[in-house]
Parts: sequence; structure tokens; C-alpha cells
Amino acid sequence: MTHDPRTEPNAVSLADTAGTAPDMSWFAWGDPAEAKELEPGLRDLISQVLRARTEDMPPVAEADVVLPASRLDSGLLKAFTELLGAEHVLVDDAARLIHSGGKSTQDLLARRAGQASPAPDAVLYPADHDEVGRLLELCSAERVAVVPFGGGTSVVGGVSPLDGGFQAVVTLDLRRLNRLVSLDTTSLTAVLGAGVRTPHAEAMLAEHGLTLGHMPQSYEYATIGGYAATRSSGQASAGYGRFEDMVVGLRVATPRGTLDAGGPPASAAGPDLRRLLVGSEGTLGVITEVAVRVRPVPERVVDEAWSFPDYASGVDALRALAQSDTRPTMARLSDETETFVNAAIGGREAVPGCQAVLGFEGTDAEVGARAAVVRKVMEAAGGTALGPDPVAHWRETRFHAPYLRDTLLSAGILAETLETAASWSDLLPLYAAVVGALTGALEDDESGAVVQCHISHTYATGASLYFTVATGAGTDPAARWDRAKRAASDAIVANRGTITHHHAVGTDHRPWMAAELGPLGGEVLRAVKSALDPHGVLNPGKLIPEA
Amino acid sequence: MTHDPRTEPNAVSLADTAGTAPDMSWFAWGDPAEAKELEPGLRDLISQVLRARTEDMPPVAEADVVLPASRLDSGLLKAFTELLGAEHVLVDDAARLIHSGGKSTQDLLARRAGQASPAPDAVLYPADHDEVGRLLELCSAERVAVVPFGGGTSVVGGVSPLDGGFQAVVTLDLRRLNRLVSLDTTSLTAVLGAGVRTPHAEAMLAEHGLTLGHMPQSYEYATIGGYAATRSSGQASAGYGRFEDMVVGLRVATPRGTLDAGGPPASAAGPDLRRLLVGSEGTLGVITEVAVRVRPVPERVVDEAWSFPDYASGVDALRALAQSDTRPTMARLSDETETFVNAAIGGREAVPGCQAVLGFEGTDAEVGARAAVVRKVMEAAGGTALGPDPVAHWRETRFHAPYLRDTLLSAGILAETLETAASWSDLLPLYAAVVGALTGALEDDESGAVVQCHISHTYATGASLYFTVATGAGTDPAARWDRAKRAASDAIVANRGTITHHHAVGTDHRPWMAAELGPLGGEVLRAVKSALDPHGVLNPGKLIPEA
Repeated sequence: MTHDPRTEPNAVSLADTAGTAPDMSWFAWGDPAEAKELEPGLRDLISQVLRARTEDMPPVAEADVVLPASRLDSGLLKAFTELLGAEHVLVDDAARLIHSGGKSTQDLLARRAGQASPAPDAVLYPADHDEVGRLLELCSAERVAVVPFGGGTSVVGGVSPLDGGFQAVVTLDLRRLNRLVSLDTTSLTAVLGAGVRTPHAEAMLAEHGLTLGHMPQSYEYATIGGYAATRSSGQASAGYGRFEDMVVGLRVATPRGTLDAGGPPASAAGPDLRRLLVGSEGTLGVITEVAVRVRPVPERVVDEAWSFPDYASGVDALRALAQSDTRPTMARLSDETETFVNAAIGGREAVPGCQAVLGFEGTDAEVGARAAVVRKVMEAAGGTALGPDPVAHWRETRFHAPYLRDTLLSAGILAETLETAASWSDLLPLYAAVVGALTGALEDDESGAVVQCHISHTYATGASLYFTVATGAGTDPAARWDRAKRAASDAIVANRGTITHHHAVGTDHRPWMAAELGPLGGEVLRAVKSALDPHGVLNPGKLIPEA
Repeated sequence: MTHDPRTEPNAVSLADTAGTAPDMSWFAWGDPAEAKELEPGLRDLISQVLRARTEDMPPVAEADVVLPASRLDSGLLKAFTELLGAEHVLVDDAARLIHSGGKSTQDLLARRAGQASPAPDAVLYPADHDEVGRLLELCSAERVAVVPFGGGTSVVGGVSPLDGGFQAVVTLDLRRLNRLVSLDTTSLTAVLGAGVRTPHAEAMLAEHGLTLGHMPQSYEYATIGGYAATRSSGQASAGYGRFEDMVVGLRVATPRGTLDAGGPPASAAGPDLRRLLVGSEGTLGVITEVAVRVRPVPERVVDEAWSFPDYASGVDALRALAQSDTRPTMARLSDETETFVNAAIGGREAVPGCQAVLGFEGTDAEVGARAAVVRKVMEAAGGTALGPDPVAHWRETRFHAPYLRDTLLSAGILAETLETAASWSDLLPLYAAVVGALTGALEDDESGAVVQCHISHTYATGASLYFTVATGAGTDPAARWDRAKRAASDAIVANRGTITHHHAVGTDHRPWMAAELGPLGGEVLRAVKSALDPHGVLNPGKLIPEA
């Protein structure tokens, strides 16, 4: 990625906004004040459906959390302080607790029970690419493990501070890399610091009438660097593409120096190294800047919901759209269970069958024409138009699910998600296998389970499946979910799904990576890691399977 | 890439067609009978424009070509023969001559002058993936260099039989890997053998109403495996995407075993290893099967040509299209010189300014609507519609240019192409720099030069530039072109272009790869190569820069 000095004058920084960006709660998603209490009636209904005796599971007080002592010796503390300044090297319990993991159900269960081990021995806040590079050289030389940290939204253990057997582990919080480094309004590309959160990115781009269009459920806290590191996919991926498709170039700091990849819009100059760094989850280097494609803010949004008699006919309709040249910007399809549950939660009457929501974003000139072409495809596939209201309801509530998970957890109900993707041919058999595996693993004397699913990302050759599971917490909720997750993951691998479509690998999916990559694929990743991180200090225990 | 046994019954092979697929001429592109003689009047005109005394440069007779003796010892010959059968191990001069290089101007000049050194010590024709794998294990153990060979269309030295300092070099001609391995008409994916040529692929897919839609100028001879190995881009890339975008999965044989990559439509399971193998040019392994996205054969094609007062306004128009949600399937724009020359060669009157050709392919239902939206964009950008005829003319003649190059070469005129891509912001400065470099390097006492250019591939963030250069051959045509190519490549690198947009790297672009990748990027590729090809026998001297 080459920096274009001609565009530097456009650089904008809303540092004040970003500097005060709040941390997420140490025991819950986002700001716990956003999580509403569960109405007693609804709680009773859920308990009844799940056949579960649910008991309150409040988190312990922060003061009661057990945190291991920092192992950072005075020499290292001095070296970090000299490099970053004392105010950017934190070893206090509050900072270490917040960075002791991500937001998987296992993370939340541990934290709520007062366990925060492992915790990082220090939290470092580098200012820019060069400081990250010097930190990595230092940590490599001193054999200190390094965990990059963006918004801390990982639900797969991606930011767990594992020390990999080294003397200490530090977390690199990248929030100070929060600038719009440059903007090219002709080529429609922006270089953003890795620590920029989505609302901040959108605010800086909106000043130029531009948008990134990347809106995953985690968007409020998740960062640009995190999106690239984990191959994120936003809710409007049908129109805007996956995050990896938006990445024009990357700047990566490694213990062996800087790696710049990409820049030109296309190339045949050997393998595309961007695609080796995207998805590397901090194991090959720390992404410090990302050049992304941006687009004009859409002039018009058209929404339409559709009903299908069953999941199979809805899947056929979404496939027809994904394989045509005229597509919606956003397309989702819930199965029968999710359609029913969503209506019940929203207090609306459920239309029998499966509901799809479509959204179209673009210019006034073309959105209507596109929606009209799509309408014909949906009608031909047996769909019944439901108008825009169900889509509006989805738009209002679409970022609330992680808060609801916390609410349910406090009420003794486990609600977790997992996801995969497969070809259109494999999709329904995979769906049935995962539903069967989850139900089989969870239906027992302690509780039943409700498994629902939606397709949220469609491609010409296949689609994603996103499962939400609710079950009583039982006597050992961590073991309970672990059992379900293993059963689902085995079913995914056995049915030609990918172990993850957009949650990434981290620690949780790593046991299935050998199957995903094959033995030589794992060797390739280990060879690249050896070249860039010879001592193996970068995010140990994540992503790359052991030999 | 997982093979789906359910789709195997669909497998089709037109082995008879493929088995007799002709080789290209040993001294020219394709079948030299296709190359028409230059009319004396046109030759005089070209000589006049170029201020060059042109003399006939006929090729030597095949019997006069100097071919080094095969160095294959009897032990190796026996081992290859036992593995493949005697009829699939060729050491005769005719087979070795045909495989002694690709089709760059330097290749053609050498061959026409009777030089075919280096030549492969043997040409091997493995039957399938397993035979390729066993060959690679053998060659690695015996330290024999291996050059994979598809259609032999490389114009960058990609199939030159360099021995890398080993005792011998063999060329693997992959033409027997010519099957449609499987077809999934629901997911719209096909698994094709690496040696399948495009017309054969299209014939097999057409039986199912499907097409790949990948039509580069080399399509008649180029193979599926070659497209993947070189990150090829077809003439309708605006609609069908680059070949790498069509690749759903790959099967690759290496000296250390088989590597399968891809399969699901999208994934966040670590870096995308497909993108590491695509573009690897035989240096990391031999691609034996490619799973590609296929599409319904278009129901309708709509063509329209446009005129713009100058290149800059035409570039703005193409940019507007590439950055919108409604795009043509094919979009090209010639600069003023190329617009004039094309008209002159076609015997038509040139419209002043620059000509663009657009094509739309798709269903009856949507092609018209798409073309209408685009028409408004072109008019708003200052374009004048010229109707479909200029596009029809382009379609008729679009695969003739390599034959014209041979015709001109026989008449003492060098005509060669080179290409790059850059962001929209960088495009016109890069264009001017390359034109200047080529003119500066070629304008001398022996001849002038005509440099023309078109954009043939557009992206949201930038576009390709494709230059065609004509100049008198002079007394030392190889040195003459080498000088021009170096000047252009230096100008490309200095102006933020990629060293190649779709011709790939081979030997010719390798000196600029260190600049393209940076030092750590080169180390990454060397690390991957060491893991997969520990003795370095795979296509030595290509692509990967030395440490």
C-alpha cells in the first residue's frame, strides 16, 4: 500500500470522539445499561418452552474478580514506558480485566463467575504504526507474547491473553490508531487507522458524503483492523461485499519489519498477499492501517419483506437472486422457528412459514429499477410480499441480540450463536445436520433447546447459515455449551461447511482448522509465521493449528 | 476443495476433441495460416509513419533450429517411462522445440532466428492429479527442474525451461488433464481439469446451458490451470470478474503432497489459501483441478459504442460506470492514437477523439434495463452514442492481434504489448509516464515508434492500461524491445502501477517484483516455497525474487 501525498491534505481526525470511545463492560456486551430486564411473563414462557428450571445468574462484583498478578518485570516495564510514555502502559487491574478476553459465552460465564485468568500482564496503547513495529521488535527480542486488541468483540477467543509459554503476555490496544490517514475521492478509497471504530469511520467518511457500508452486529465497538484481521462480513454484504473485498491495501507491522500489501485495483504480480494478511488474526503481524473502498452514501433505501411457505422455497428464492446480475444490497431469510420466535419477541403475529427481508441501497436513479427486477424473481419463486414494515422492525432491533444474550444469561438461560457457510447444494443437508447435532447435544433432563437459523450472507455459489441456540443454563453452563459447540462443529466439518463464515477462528475453532486446511495448508501458515514472527510471540494459541 | 460424489454422474469428457487439440506453431502464435500477409501499401504506410527501413525477417526452417541435446540420463528416462508409459515421455526434437518457451516477442525473435536454447530435456504428459504428484516427488528427489505447461501462451517467459542449476529440466504438458470432473448445476460450480482449453471448457459447459465467460485474447489455446496460475483476466471482466474471482477451489500437487484449498462460498477460517495458490505460476505446486463458478449462457447481448472528445473524459465515464451498481459486462476505451489506428486498419473513417465499446450480457429481462441506466451515465459524462457496429467490428477482430504481431514481425516491424493497472487518481499520470518512457526509449535513428493504449478492465478503485507499441525492428530487435520494456517497467513502478495486471510475472517481470512485494513480501513467498518445494525444483527462475 503506497501512501499518496497528494491526498494527505484531506486527512481528518475526530480524535476527541475516538479518544473517549468507551470500553465494553468487563462482564457483558457493550454498555450493560442497554440490556433490558426480561419481563417475568416472557421468562416463564421461555422456561416452559425449554422445560428448564432457570435461576438468576447475576455477575459477581468487580471487586470480587480474581485477577492473577502482573508478571511484568521492572526491566520490561521500563522498556515499554520509555517507548510509549507511562500513561500508555497500564498494569492496573481495571485495564487488565477489560482486556482479559472477548465476548464469547464462555468469556462471559467466566467473567460473571469472577474468573479473569489469564489476564494480560500489561495493556499497551501505541500511537502509530512505528510504535507498534518497535513494540513487536522488543517483544520478540524479549520473548513476550503479544495480543492485538481492537474493539474486543471476538466471540471465538481471538483476544484471549494466552502467553504461549513465554514469560509474559501484553495486550496491544490499538485505539490510538484512530485517524482517517488519507482519502482519495476520485478512486473512492480511504486509508483508515486499524483502531478506528465503525461509527467513527462512518462519521469521518460522512463529511465527504461517503460510507464504508460495513455493518456487522458488532459494528458499534469493532474496529477497521479487527475487520481485516478476522475476515468480517457485514449485514449488507450482498451489496457491499465482505470486508476482505473492500480491502484495497494493508500496512502490517511484524517483528521483522513492515509489510505493505496491495494498492492497485487488480494485479497479476504473483499471489495476492493481501489475502494472506486478511484473516491472519494477529498471528502474522499487527495490521495498523487499512486502505478500503468507500462509496457514496446511498440516496435511497428501499425495503421489502417476503414470506415463503417453507425454508427450502425461501432458499431457492435467495439463490435465484444471488445468481442473477440484479441483486438486493441486503438479503436475509429466517427459518420457520426463527420467523416464529422473532414475531413472538416483537409481540407481532407470525406469518406462517419463513420470512425474508430485503434491502436496496443506491442512487435514486437505479434503486427502484433494481427492486422491480428483484420483485419479479421473488414472485416467480413463490414469495408473498409483506411490505417494508418487517424490514423496519429488523433494522430497529438488529444490533440488540448481544444485549439480549446478557439479559437471558442473567436469567439462567444460555443463548449463543454459531455460523458456517456452504454451497447451495450442501446448504439444507448441513442445516439439518447442525440442528440435529445441537438438539442431540442439549436435549436432556436439565433442559430442552430451541435452535433457529437464518441465512444472512448470500453468494453465487452458496450461502451462510447462522444458528441461534437457547437452552437452560443447567448446573454447568460452560460444559453444556462446550458440548453443543463441539457437536455442531463436528457436524459442520462432516457436511462440507466451513468452520466459520465470519466469526473467525481464535481459540474456539482452532481444533477444526486442521480439517479445514489439510496438513499442507497448516504447514504453509506455519512457514509464513516463521518468516514474519520467528520466535512465535504473535497471538500464540490462535488460528494456526499445531504441526 | 472437496469432491462431491453426488455430482460425479454429471461428469463429461470430450476427450477426442481435447486429445487432438493442436499445438501452437514453434515460431509464431497459434496456427501461422491464420496470419495474413501485410498488404504492400499498408506496409509502406507503416514504414513511413515509423520512419523505418523495414526488411523481411522470415523464420528459419525448422530443420535449421539449433536445439541442445537432451541431458536426461537413462535412469531418469526409465523412471519417467515406468510412471507414465513410454508414449507419454517425449524426448524428440519436435516436442522439445514446441515446449522451449512461450510467445513473448523475445521468444518469437529467438525461435525465428533458429535458437531454441534452453529446451526441456523431456516433455512429460501425466494423465491425472496422482501422476502429477508422483512426478513431482520423483523430480524433487532426483533434483530435476519442472516447468508446468498449459497452452504455452505465456508472453512473460513463464514456461521457459530454465533448469535452475539442476541436472535437467522437464516440461509437464497438462493436456491430458482435460475432463469436466464434476458439475453442480444448483451451486453453479464446475470442477475442470487444469489442462482444459477454453473452447473445450465452453463446449462441455454449453451442453448444460452454462458458460465460464472468461475470454482473454489467448482463450483459444490457454488452459484453466494456466488462468489460475497466472491470475488471468478476460475481456468481459467487468461482468464476469477476473479468473481469480471465479475460482471456488483448487487442487494442487506439490513435491510434499496434495493441497486442497477453498470450497465453501466464503469463509473466515484464516487467510484464504486459494489466493496464495492463484498466481503462483507453478513455483509452489502444479494446479491440477480448478473448481470455478459458472453461469447460464446469456440470453441476450446488447452492444453499444461511444465517442468521447478526449481520453480524460472517456476515463471519467468509465470510472462513473465502474463505481456504480449498474454496470456493463464489458467496457473498453481506446486512446486517441488507438482509436485512429484501429479505424485505419479496419479501413473505416475514424471519429475524432476516443472510442469506447460496451457490451451487456444477461437475461432478456434485465439486459435492456441495465443498458438503459448505463446509457444515461454515458450521456451525462459527455459521450456520443455510435451504435453497435464498432463493437461488432471489435468482436470480429478481437483475437487477431497476436497473429498481426507475427505478420508485422515477418515484415521487419516490432509490435508488442505491455500492461499495468493503477487507481483512477494515478491512471492518467501513469499513462503519460509510460508513453513517454516508451517513446524516449525507441525514438532513434533507426525508427520512430507509435504507442497506443486502451483501458480494458475497470474496477471501482481503478483500471488497467494496455499499451501496444509498434516500431521498426532495427538491427538488433531483441535489444531494442528489451530497452523499451525496461524503460516502461521502471516508469510503471515509479508511478504506482502494478508491474502486471494480467500478463503475470514469469522471467520478464521478475526484476521488478522486489519493488512490487517489498523485502518481507519476497520472504513470505520464499518461505511458502520452502515448505511446499523444499529443493526448489518447481519452475525455477520465475516469479519469486531472490533474497
